[in-house]
Amino acid sequence: MDSRKKVEVCFSPNLYSLHKEDADIVVVIDVLRATSAICAAFDNGIKKIIPVSTVEEAIEYKRNKNYIVAAERKGKIVDGFEFGNSPYSYMNENIKGKTLVLTTTNGTKAFHTAKDAKHVIIGSLINLDAVCDYLFKEYKNVMILASGWQNKFCLEDTICAGAIVEKLLSSGKFTSEHDSSIAAKFLFLSARDNIFGYLKASSHRRRLRALNLNKDIKYCLTPNQTDVVPIRENDYLVKG
Amino acid sequence: MDSRKKVEVCFSPNLYSLHKEDADIVVVIDVLRATSAICAAFDNGIKKIIPVSTVEEAIEYKRNKNYIVAAERKGKIVDGFEFGNSPYSYMNENIKGKTLVLTTTNGTKAFHTAKDAKHVIIGSLINLDAVCDYLFKEYKNVMILASGWQNKFCLEDTICAGAIVEKLLSSGKFTSEHDSSIAAKFLFLSARDNIFGYLKASSHRRRLRALNLNKDIKYCLTPNQTDVVPIRENDYLVKG
Repeated sequence: MDSRKKVEVCFSPNLYSLHKEDADIVVVIDVLRATSAICAAFDNGIKKIIPVSTVEEAIEYKRNKNYIVAAERKGKIVDGFEFGNSPYSYMNENIKGKTLVLTTTNGTKAFHTAKDAKHVIIGSLINLDAVCDYLFKEYKNVMILASGWQNKFCLEDTICAGAIVEKLLSSGKFTSEHDSSIAAKFLFLSARDNIFGYLKASSHRRRLRALNLNKDIKYCLTPNQTDVVPIRENDYLVKG
Repeated sequence: MDSRKKVEVCFSPNLYSLHKEDADIVVVIDVLRATSAICAAFDNGIKKIIPVSTVEEAIEYKRNKNYIVAAERKGKIVDGFEFGNSPYSYMNENIKGKTLVLTTTNGTKAFHTAKDAKHVIIGSLINLDAVCDYLFKEYKNVMILASGWQNKFCLEDTICAGAIVEKLLSSGKFTSEHDSSIAAKFLFLSARDNIFGYLKASSHRRRLRALNLNKDIKYCLTPNQTDVVPIRENDYLVKG
Protein backbone atom coordinates (compact mmCIF):
# COMPACT_ATOMS: atom_id res chain seq x y z
CA MET A 1 0.00 0.00 0.00
CA ASP A 2 1.11 3.51 -0.83
CA SER A 3 1.92 5.23 2.45
CA ARG A 4 2.50 8.66 0.90
CA LYS A 5 0.14 11.47 1.79
CA LYS A 6 -2.13 12.90 -0.92
CA VAL A 7 -2.18 16.39 -2.37
CA GLU A 8 -5.30 17.17 -4.39
CA VAL A 9 -6.74 20.30 -6.00
CA CYS A 10 -10.39 21.36 -5.93
CA PHE A 11 -11.14 23.92 -8.66
CA SER A 12 -14.23 25.50 -7.16
CA PRO A 13 -16.04 25.81 -3.82
CA ASN A 14 -18.98 24.19 -5.69
CA LEU A 15 -16.96 20.96 -6.02
CA TYR A 16 -15.73 20.98 -2.41
CA SER A 17 -18.07 18.25 -1.19
CA LEU A 18 -16.67 15.85 -3.83
CA HIS A 19 -13.11 16.32 -2.62
CA LYS A 20 -13.36 16.89 1.11
CA GLU A 21 -13.03 13.26 2.11
CA ASP A 22 -9.40 13.46 0.94
CA ALA A 23 -8.47 16.37 3.14
CA ASP A 24 -6.88 16.49 6.56
CA ILE A 25 -5.68 20.00 5.84
CA VAL A 26 -7.24 22.52 3.45
CA VAL A 27 -5.24 25.30 1.79
CA VAL A 28 -7.59 28.11 0.69
CA ILE A 29 -6.29 30.12 -2.28
CA ASP A 30 -7.52 33.34 -3.86
CA VAL A 31 -4.44 34.76 -5.57
CA LEU A 32 -6.23 37.82 -7.01
CA ARG A 33 -6.42 39.12 -4.33
CA ALA A 34 -7.95 38.00 -1.02
CA THR A 35 -5.43 35.45 0.18
CA SER A 36 -2.51 37.58 -1.07
CA ALA A 37 -3.92 40.53 0.90
CA ILE A 38 -4.36 38.33 4.00
CA CYS A 39 -0.69 37.25 3.82
CA ALA A 40 0.43 40.85 3.21
CA ALA A 41 -1.63 42.06 6.20
CA PHE A 42 -0.03 39.52 8.56
CA ASP A 43 3.37 40.32 7.09
CA ASN A 44 2.75 43.95 8.03
CA GLY A 45 1.74 43.30 11.60
CA ILE A 46 -2.01 42.54 11.66
CA LYS A 47 -2.70 40.33 14.68
CA LYS A 48 -5.94 38.64 13.70
CA ILE A 49 -8.23 38.46 10.65
CA ILE A 50 -11.93 37.63 10.82
CA PRO A 51 -13.23 36.61 7.37
CA VAL A 52 -16.97 37.28 7.03
CA SER A 53 -19.27 36.23 4.20
CA THR A 54 -21.46 39.29 3.76
CA VAL A 55 -21.10 43.05 3.57
CA GLU A 56 -23.84 43.28 6.21
CA GLU A 57 -21.68 41.38 8.72
CA ALA A 58 -18.74 43.65 7.90
CA ILE A 59 -20.92 46.72 8.54
CA GLU A 60 -21.79 45.38 12.02
CA TYR A 61 -18.10 45.34 12.90
CA LYS A 62 -17.64 48.93 11.65
CA ARG A 63 -19.49 50.21 14.72
CA ASN A 64 -16.56 49.08 16.87
CA LYS A 65 -13.49 51.29 16.46
CA ASN A 66 -11.14 48.46 17.48
CA TYR A 67 -11.53 46.77 14.09
CA ILE A 68 -10.20 47.59 10.67
CA VAL A 69 -13.03 46.60 8.38
CA ALA A 70 -12.56 45.79 4.70
CA ALA A 71 -15.10 44.90 2.01
CA GLU A 72 -14.58 44.14 -1.65
CA ARG A 73 -17.08 43.17 -4.33
CA LYS A 74 -16.30 42.67 -8.02
CA GLY A 75 -12.77 44.05 -7.64
CA LYS A 76 -13.79 47.33 -5.96
CA ILE A 77 -13.88 48.63 -2.38
CA VAL A 78 -17.52 48.64 -1.29
CA ASP A 79 -18.96 52.15 -0.77
CA GLY A 80 -18.54 53.30 2.81
CA PHE A 81 -15.39 51.24 3.45
CA GLU A 82 -11.78 52.42 3.44
CA PHE A 83 -10.21 49.03 2.81
CA GLY A 84 -10.78 46.40 0.12
CA ASN A 85 -8.52 43.55 -0.88
CA SER A 86 -5.53 45.42 -2.27
CA PRO A 87 -2.40 44.07 -0.54
CA TYR A 88 -0.89 47.57 -0.72
CA SER A 89 -3.53 48.99 1.58
CA TYR A 90 -2.11 46.76 4.33
CA MET A 91 1.47 47.98 3.94
CA ASN A 92 0.73 50.52 6.58
CA GLU A 93 2.19 51.10 10.06
CA ASN A 94 -1.25 51.85 11.49
CA ILE A 95 -2.48 48.27 11.16
CA LYS A 96 0.08 46.80 13.59
CA GLY A 97 -1.46 44.68 16.35
CA LYS A 98 -5.00 45.27 15.10
CA THR A 99 -7.81 42.94 14.04
CA LEU A 100 -8.99 43.03 10.43
CA VAL A 101 -12.52 42.05 9.44
CA LEU A 102 -12.64 41.13 5.75
CA THR A 103 -15.30 40.21 3.19
CA THR A 104 -14.44 39.62 -0.46
CA THR A 105 -16.21 38.32 -3.58
CA ASN A 106 -14.59 34.91 -3.69
CA GLY A 107 -11.85 34.27 -1.12
CA THR A 108 -13.79 34.65 2.11
CA LYS A 109 -16.61 32.54 0.66
CA ALA A 110 -14.17 29.72 -0.07
CA PHE A 111 -12.86 30.02 3.49
CA HIS A 112 -16.38 29.50 4.80
CA THR A 113 -16.98 26.60 2.39
CA ALA A 114 -14.22 24.74 4.24
CA LYS A 115 -15.78 25.45 7.65
CA ASP A 116 -16.09 21.75 8.51
CA ALA A 117 -12.43 21.01 7.70
CA LYS A 118 -10.24 20.10 10.66
CA HIS A 119 -7.34 22.28 9.68
CA VAL A 120 -7.35 25.30 7.34
CA ILE A 121 -4.48 27.51 6.18
CA ILE A 122 -4.20 30.36 3.67
CA GLY A 123 -2.04 30.09 0.57
CA SER A 124 -1.00 32.46 -2.19
CA LEU A 125 1.97 32.86 -4.48
CA ILE A 126 3.50 35.43 -2.11
CA ASN A 127 3.85 32.80 0.66
CA LEU A 128 4.29 29.77 -1.61
CA ASP A 129 7.44 28.21 -0.15
CA ALA A 130 6.32 28.91 3.41
CA VAL A 131 3.05 27.03 2.72
CA CYS A 132 4.95 24.09 1.23
CA ASP A 133 7.32 23.98 4.20
CA TYR A 134 4.32 24.01 6.52
CA LEU A 135 2.72 21.12 4.61
CA PHE A 136 5.92 19.08 4.71
CA LYS A 137 6.12 19.62 8.45
CA GLU A 138 2.47 18.74 9.12
CA TYR A 139 2.58 15.82 6.67
CA LYS A 140 -1.15 15.21 6.29
CA ASN A 141 -3.43 14.67 3.29
CA VAL A 142 -3.77 18.08 1.61
CA MET A 143 -6.62 19.60 -0.36
CA ILE A 144 -5.96 22.88 -2.11
CA LEU A 145 -9.23 24.76 -2.49
CA ALA A 146 -9.18 27.35 -5.28
CA SER A 147 -11.68 30.12 -4.69
CA GLY A 148 -12.20 30.68 -8.40
CA TRP A 149 -14.26 33.49 -9.82
CA GLN A 150 -17.87 33.34 -8.67
CA ASN A 151 -17.40 29.60 -8.12
CA LYS A 152 -16.05 29.09 -11.63
CA PHE A 153 -12.57 27.75 -12.36
CA CYS A 154 -9.87 30.44 -12.49
CA LEU A 155 -6.36 30.22 -13.88
CA GLU A 156 -4.34 32.14 -11.30
CA ASP A 157 -5.57 30.04 -8.38
CA THR A 158 -4.97 26.88 -10.41
CA ILE A 159 -1.39 27.89 -11.19
CA CYS A 160 -0.70 28.60 -7.52
CA ALA A 161 -2.26 25.24 -6.59
CA GLY A 162 -0.14 23.59 -9.30
CA ALA A 163 3.00 25.15 -7.82
CA ILE A 164 2.21 23.59 -4.44
CA VAL A 165 1.39 20.22 -6.04
CA GLU A 166 4.62 20.27 -8.04
CA LYS A 167 6.75 21.00 -4.99
CA LEU A 168 5.05 18.38 -2.82
CA LEU A 169 5.18 15.68 -5.52
CA SER A 170 8.85 16.41 -6.32
CA SER A 171 9.76 15.47 -2.77
CA GLY A 172 8.50 11.93 -3.33
CA LYS A 173 6.59 12.18 -0.07
CA PHE A 174 3.22 13.04 -1.60
CA THR A 175 1.10 11.60 -4.39
CA SER A 176 -1.89 12.89 -6.42
CA GLU A 177 -4.79 10.80 -7.68
CA HIS A 178 -7.13 13.30 -9.25
CA ASP A 179 -6.88 14.76 -12.73
CA SER A 180 -7.48 18.24 -11.33
CA SER A 181 -4.17 17.98 -9.45
CA ILE A 182 -2.35 16.71 -12.54
CA ALA A 183 -3.85 19.49 -14.72
CA ALA A 184 -2.93 22.15 -12.15
CA LYS A 185 0.66 20.91 -12.16
CA PHE A 186 0.77 20.91 -15.99
CA LEU A 187 -0.59 24.47 -16.11
CA PHE A 188 1.92 25.66 -13.48
CA LEU A 189 4.82 24.09 -15.40
CA SER A 190 3.74 25.92 -18.59
CA ALA A 191 3.35 29.19 -16.72
CA ARG A 192 6.25 29.13 -14.26
CA ASP A 193 8.77 31.12 -16.30
CA ASN A 194 6.41 34.01 -16.90
CA ILE A 195 3.31 33.84 -14.75
CA PHE A 196 2.40 37.45 -15.44
CA GLY A 197 2.62 36.95 -19.21
CA TYR A 198 0.82 33.60 -19.06
CA LEU A 199 -2.11 35.11 -17.24
CA LYS A 200 -2.59 37.90 -19.76
CA ALA A 201 -5.34 35.76 -21.20
CA SER A 202 -7.00 35.15 -17.85
CA SER A 203 -10.49 36.52 -17.56
CA HIS A 204 -10.05 37.77 -14.01
CA ARG A 205 -6.86 39.60 -14.90
CA ARG A 206 -8.68 41.27 -17.77
CA ARG A 207 -11.34 42.28 -15.27
CA LEU A 208 -8.78 43.70 -12.83
CA ARG A 209 -6.82 45.45 -15.55
CA ALA A 210 -9.97 47.27 -16.47
CA LEU A 211 -9.97 48.52 -12.86
CA ASN A 212 -6.35 49.70 -13.26
CA LEU A 213 -4.95 47.21 -10.77
CA ASN A 214 -1.79 46.13 -12.60
CA LYS A 215 0.41 47.05 -9.64
CA ASP A 216 -1.64 44.78 -7.37
CA ILE A 217 -1.56 41.99 -9.91
CA LYS A 218 2.22 42.11 -10.26
CA TYR A 219 2.58 41.95 -6.48
CA CYS A 220 0.16 39.02 -6.16
CA LEU A 221 1.88 37.04 -8.92
CA THR A 222 5.40 37.38 -7.47
CA PRO A 223 6.24 34.28 -5.44
CA ASN A 224 7.82 34.18 -1.99
CA GLN A 225 7.65 37.67 -0.62
CA THR A 226 6.74 36.56 2.89
CA ASP A 227 7.07 33.49 5.11
CA VAL A 228 3.82 33.96 7.03
CA VAL A 229 1.30 31.11 6.94
CA PRO A 230 -2.12 32.28 8.13
CA ILE A 231 -3.87 29.54 10.09
CA ARG A 232 -7.52 29.22 11.11
CA GLU A 233 -8.22 29.17 14.83
CA ASN A 234 -11.92 28.97 15.71
CA ASP A 235 -13.50 31.31 13.13
CA TYR A 236 -10.62 33.70 12.59
CA LEU A 237 -7.09 33.63 11.22
CA VAL A 238 -3.79 34.10 13.03
CA LYS A 239 -0.20 34.09 11.90
CA GLY A 240 1.17 30.55 12.07
CA MET B 1 -19.53 45.34 -29.20
CA ASP B 2 -18.02 41.97 -29.92
CA SER B 3 -20.37 40.17 -32.28
CA ARG B 4 -18.50 36.88 -32.19
CA LYS B 5 -20.19 33.85 -30.66
CA LYS B 6 -18.82 32.37 -27.44
CA VAL B 7 -17.33 28.95 -26.85
CA GLU B 8 -16.98 28.03 -23.17
CA VAL B 9 -16.04 24.89 -21.28
CA CYS B 10 -17.76 23.56 -18.17
CA PHE B 11 -15.55 21.07 -16.31
CA SER B 12 -18.23 19.21 -14.38
CA PRO B 13 -22.00 18.64 -14.41
CA ASN B 14 -21.87 20.12 -10.88
CA LEU B 15 -20.85 23.49 -12.36
CA TYR B 16 -23.42 23.42 -15.17
CA SER B 17 -25.80 25.92 -13.59
CA LEU B 18 -22.98 28.52 -13.44
CA HIS B 19 -22.32 28.24 -17.17
CA LYS B 20 -25.66 27.50 -18.75
CA GLU B 21 -26.63 31.11 -19.37
CA ASP B 22 -23.86 31.21 -21.99
CA ALA B 23 -25.15 28.28 -23.97
CA ASP B 24 -27.37 28.15 -27.03
CA ILE B 25 -25.92 24.78 -27.88
CA VAL B 26 -24.39 22.24 -25.47
CA VAL B 27 -21.80 19.68 -26.55
CA VAL B 28 -21.76 16.76 -24.08
CA ILE B 29 -18.40 14.98 -23.89
CA ASP B 30 -17.37 11.74 -22.18
CA VAL B 31 -14.32 10.62 -24.13
CA LEU B 32 -13.69 7.50 -22.00
CA ARG B 33 -16.02 6.09 -23.18
CA ALA B 34 -19.75 6.95 -23.35
CA THR B 35 -19.77 9.62 -26.05
CA SER B 36 -17.13 7.76 -28.08
CA ALA B 37 -19.33 4.64 -27.92
CA ILE B 38 -22.40 6.68 -28.94
CA CYS B 39 -20.59 8.02 -32.00
CA ALA B 40 -19.26 4.54 -32.85
CA ALA B 41 -22.76 3.07 -32.56
CA PHE B 42 -24.26 5.61 -34.97
CA ASP B 43 -21.30 5.11 -37.30
CA ASN B 44 -22.15 1.42 -37.35
CA GLY B 45 -25.80 1.85 -38.16
CA ILE B 46 -27.70 2.33 -34.89
CA LYS B 47 -30.83 4.36 -35.65
CA LYS B 48 -31.64 5.85 -32.27
CA ILE B 49 -30.07 5.99 -28.77
CA ILE B 50 -32.04 6.54 -25.57
CA PRO B 51 -29.71 7.59 -22.73
CA VAL B 52 -31.15 6.69 -19.33
CA SER B 53 -29.86 7.68 -15.89
CA THR B 54 -30.30 4.49 -13.91
CA VAL B 55 -29.71 0.78 -14.30
CA GLU B 56 -33.32 0.25 -13.18
CA GLU B 57 -34.61 2.20 -16.20
CA ALA B 58 -32.33 0.18 -18.47
CA ILE B 59 -33.71 -3.07 -17.01
CA GLU B 60 -37.27 -1.94 -17.85
CA TYR B 61 -36.27 -1.67 -21.52
CA LYS B 62 -34.72 -5.15 -21.48
CA ARG B 63 -38.19 -6.68 -21.40
CA ASN B 64 -38.76 -5.43 -24.93
CA LYS B 65 -36.78 -7.40 -27.52
CA ASN B 66 -36.73 -4.46 -29.94
CA TYR B 67 -34.08 -2.67 -27.91
CA ILE B 68 -30.41 -3.26 -27.47
CA VAL B 69 -29.81 -2.36 -23.82
CA ALA B 70 -26.41 -1.37 -22.43
CA ALA B 71 -25.33 -0.56 -18.87
CA GLU B 72 -21.93 0.38 -17.53
CA ARG B 73 -20.86 1.28 -14.00
CA LYS B 74 -17.28 1.96 -12.90
CA GLY B 75 -15.84 0.85 -16.21
CA LYS B 76 -17.56 -2.56 -16.31
CA ILE B 77 -20.65 -4.02 -18.00
CA VAL B 78 -23.35 -4.34 -15.35
CA ASP B 79 -24.22 -7.96 -14.50
CA GLY B 80 -27.09 -9.22 -16.61
CA PHE B 81 -26.31 -6.95 -19.60
CA GLU B 82 -24.49 -7.87 -22.80
CA PHE B 83 -23.42 -4.36 -23.73
CA GLY B 84 -21.52 -1.65 -21.81
CA ASN B 85 -19.77 1.39 -23.20
CA SER B 86 -17.00 -0.20 -25.20
CA PRO B 87 -17.11 1.29 -28.72
CA TYR B 88 -15.97 -2.09 -30.11
CA SER B 89 -19.15 -3.79 -28.97
CA TYR B 90 -21.05 -1.58 -31.45
CA MET B 91 -18.90 -2.54 -34.43
CA ASN B 92 -21.40 -5.21 -35.18
CA GLU B 93 -23.69 -5.84 -38.16
CA ASN B 94 -26.53 -6.88 -35.87
CA ILE B 95 -27.08 -3.39 -34.47
CA LYS B 96 -28.09 -1.84 -37.82
CA GLY B 97 -31.38 0.03 -37.73
CA LYS B 98 -31.96 -0.74 -34.05
CA THR B 99 -32.51 1.41 -30.98
CA LEU B 100 -29.92 1.38 -28.21
CA VAL B 101 -30.80 2.16 -24.58
CA LEU B 102 -27.70 3.21 -22.67
CA THR B 103 -26.80 4.05 -19.07
CA THR B 104 -23.22 4.86 -18.04
CA THR B 105 -21.43 6.13 -14.92
CA ASN B 106 -20.80 9.67 -16.14
CA GLY B 107 -21.78 10.40 -19.74
CA THR B 108 -25.51 9.74 -19.62
CA LYS B 109 -25.73 11.70 -16.35
CA ALA B 110 -24.12 14.71 -18.02
CA PHE B 111 -26.59 14.35 -20.89
CA HIS B 112 -29.47 14.57 -18.41
CA THR B 113 -27.84 17.52 -16.61
CA ALA B 114 -28.28 19.49 -19.82
CA LYS B 115 -31.94 18.54 -20.14
CA ASP B 116 -33.10 22.17 -20.12
CA ALA B 117 -30.70 23.19 -22.90
CA LYS B 118 -32.32 24.13 -26.19
CA HIS B 119 -29.92 22.24 -28.37
CA VAL B 120 -27.66 19.32 -27.38
CA ILE B 121 -25.14 17.36 -29.42
CA ILE B 122 -22.60 14.63 -28.59
CA GLY B 123 -18.88 15.20 -28.96
CA SER B 124 -15.79 13.03 -28.66
CA LEU B 125 -12.34 12.92 -30.17
CA ILE B 126 -13.51 10.38 -32.75
CA ASN B 127 -15.95 12.91 -34.30
CA LEU B 128 -13.95 16.06 -33.46
CA ASP B 129 -13.85 17.77 -36.85
CA ALA B 130 -17.45 16.86 -37.59
CA VAL B 131 -18.53 18.52 -34.32
CA CYS B 132 -16.54 21.66 -35.15
CA ASP B 133 -18.01 21.80 -38.66
CA TYR B 134 -21.48 21.46 -37.15
CA LEU B 135 -20.77 24.30 -34.69
CA PHE B 136 -19.48 26.56 -37.46
CA LYS B 137 -22.62 25.87 -39.47
CA GLU B 138 -25.01 26.47 -36.57
CA TYR B 139 -23.01 29.49 -35.35
CA LYS B 140 -24.50 29.84 -31.86
CA ASN B 141 -22.98 30.34 -28.39
CA VAL B 142 -21.44 26.99 -27.45
CA MET B 143 -20.96 25.36 -24.06
CA ILE B 144 -18.89 22.20 -23.94
CA LEU B 145 -19.99 20.11 -20.97
CA ALA B 146 -17.34 17.66 -19.78
CA SER B 147 -18.87 14.69 -18.00
CA GLY B 148 -15.83 14.27 -15.79
CA TRP B 149 -15.36 11.36 -13.43
CA GLN B 150 -18.10 11.19 -10.80
CA ASN B 151 -18.61 14.92 -11.31
CA LYS B 152 -14.91 15.71 -10.80
CA PHE B 153 -12.72 17.32 -13.43
CA CYS B 154 -11.13 14.85 -15.86
CA LEU B 155 -8.26 15.35 -18.25
CA GLU B 156 -9.42 13.48 -21.34
CA ASP B 157 -12.72 15.36 -21.58
CA THR B 158 -10.87 18.63 -21.00
CA ILE B 159 -8.41 17.91 -23.80
CA CYS B 160 -11.25 17.10 -26.18
CA ALA B 161 -13.04 20.30 -25.13
CA GLY B 162 -9.78 22.21 -25.62
CA ALA B 163 -9.46 20.82 -29.14
CA ILE B 164 -12.91 22.17 -30.02
CA VAL B 165 -12.14 25.55 -28.38
CA GLU B 166 -8.83 25.81 -30.26
CA LYS B 167 -10.45 25.10 -33.61
CA LEU B 168 -13.34 27.50 -33.06
CA LEU B 169 -11.11 30.32 -31.76
CA SER B 170 -8.59 29.89 -34.61
CA SER B 171 -11.33 30.75 -37.08
CA GLY B 172 -11.69 34.20 -35.55
CA LYS B 173 -15.46 33.68 -35.46
CA PHE B 174 -15.65 32.63 -31.80
CA THR B 175 -14.32 34.05 -28.55
CA SER B 176 -13.88 32.64 -25.00
CA GLU B 177 -14.31 34.57 -21.77
CA HIS B 178 -13.87 31.97 -19.06
CA ASP B 179 -10.59 30.68 -17.69
CA SER B 180 -11.86 27.10 -17.98
CA SER B 181 -11.96 27.52 -21.77
CA ILE B 182 -8.46 29.05 -21.84
CA ALA B 183 -7.06 26.26 -19.61
CA ALA B 184 -8.70 23.56 -21.75
CA LYS B 185 -7.08 25.06 -24.84
CA PHE B 186 -3.66 25.21 -23.11
CA LEU B 187 -3.96 21.59 -22.00
CA PHE B 188 -4.98 20.48 -25.49
CA LEU B 189 -2.02 22.31 -27.06
CA SER B 190 0.39 20.55 -24.65
CA ALA B 191 -1.22 17.19 -25.35
CA ARG B 192 -1.99 17.35 -29.07
CA ASP B 193 1.14 15.63 -30.38
CA ASN B 194 0.73 12.61 -28.15
CA ILE B 195 -2.65 12.48 -26.46
CA PHE B 196 -2.21 8.84 -25.48
CA GLY B 197 1.17 9.51 -23.83
CA TYR B 198 -0.07 12.70 -22.19
CA LEU B 199 -2.95 10.91 -20.56
CA LYS B 200 -0.76 8.20 -19.07
CA ALA B 201 -0.97 10.21 -15.87
CA SER B 202 -4.74 10.57 -16.01
CA SER B 203 -6.55 8.94 -13.14
CA HIS B 204 -9.37 7.60 -15.27
CA ARG B 205 -6.96 6.01 -17.71
CA ARG B 206 -5.19 4.33 -14.83
CA ARG B 207 -8.58 3.04 -13.74
CA LEU B 208 -9.40 1.71 -17.21
CA ARG B 209 -5.95 0.23 -17.70
CA ALA B 210 -6.54 -1.78 -14.58
CA LEU B 211 -9.61 -3.17 -16.37
CA ASN B 212 -7.46 -4.09 -19.41
CA LEU B 213 -9.13 -1.60 -21.71
CA ASN B 214 -6.10 -0.23 -23.55
CA LYS B 215 -7.57 -1.11 -26.95
CA ASP B 216 -10.71 0.90 -26.14
CA ILE B 217 -8.63 3.81 -24.86
CA LYS B 218 -6.52 3.96 -28.03
CA TYR B 219 -9.67 3.99 -30.15
CA CYS B 220 -11.32 6.72 -28.05
CA LEU B 221 -8.20 8.93 -28.14
CA THR B 222 -7.77 8.78 -31.93
CA PRO B 223 -9.37 11.86 -33.51
CA ASN B 224 -11.64 11.92 -36.55
CA GLN B 225 -12.68 8.37 -37.22
CA THR B 226 -16.27 9.28 -38.08
CA ASP B 227 -18.25 12.26 -39.30
CA VAL B 228 -21.46 11.49 -37.39
CA VAL B 229 -22.77 14.16 -35.00
CA PRO B 230 -25.38 12.70 -32.64
CA ILE B 231 -28.12 15.21 -31.91
CA ARG B 232 -30.77 15.22 -29.20
CA GLU B 233 -34.37 15.08 -30.38
CA ASN B 234 -36.91 14.97 -27.56
CA ASP B 235 -35.24 12.63 -25.02
CA TYR B 236 -33.23 10.49 -27.41
CA LEU B 237 -30.35 10.87 -29.83
CA VAL B 238 -30.33 10.56 -33.61
CA LYS B 239 -27.64 10.88 -36.24
CA GLY B 240 -27.37 14.49 -37.33
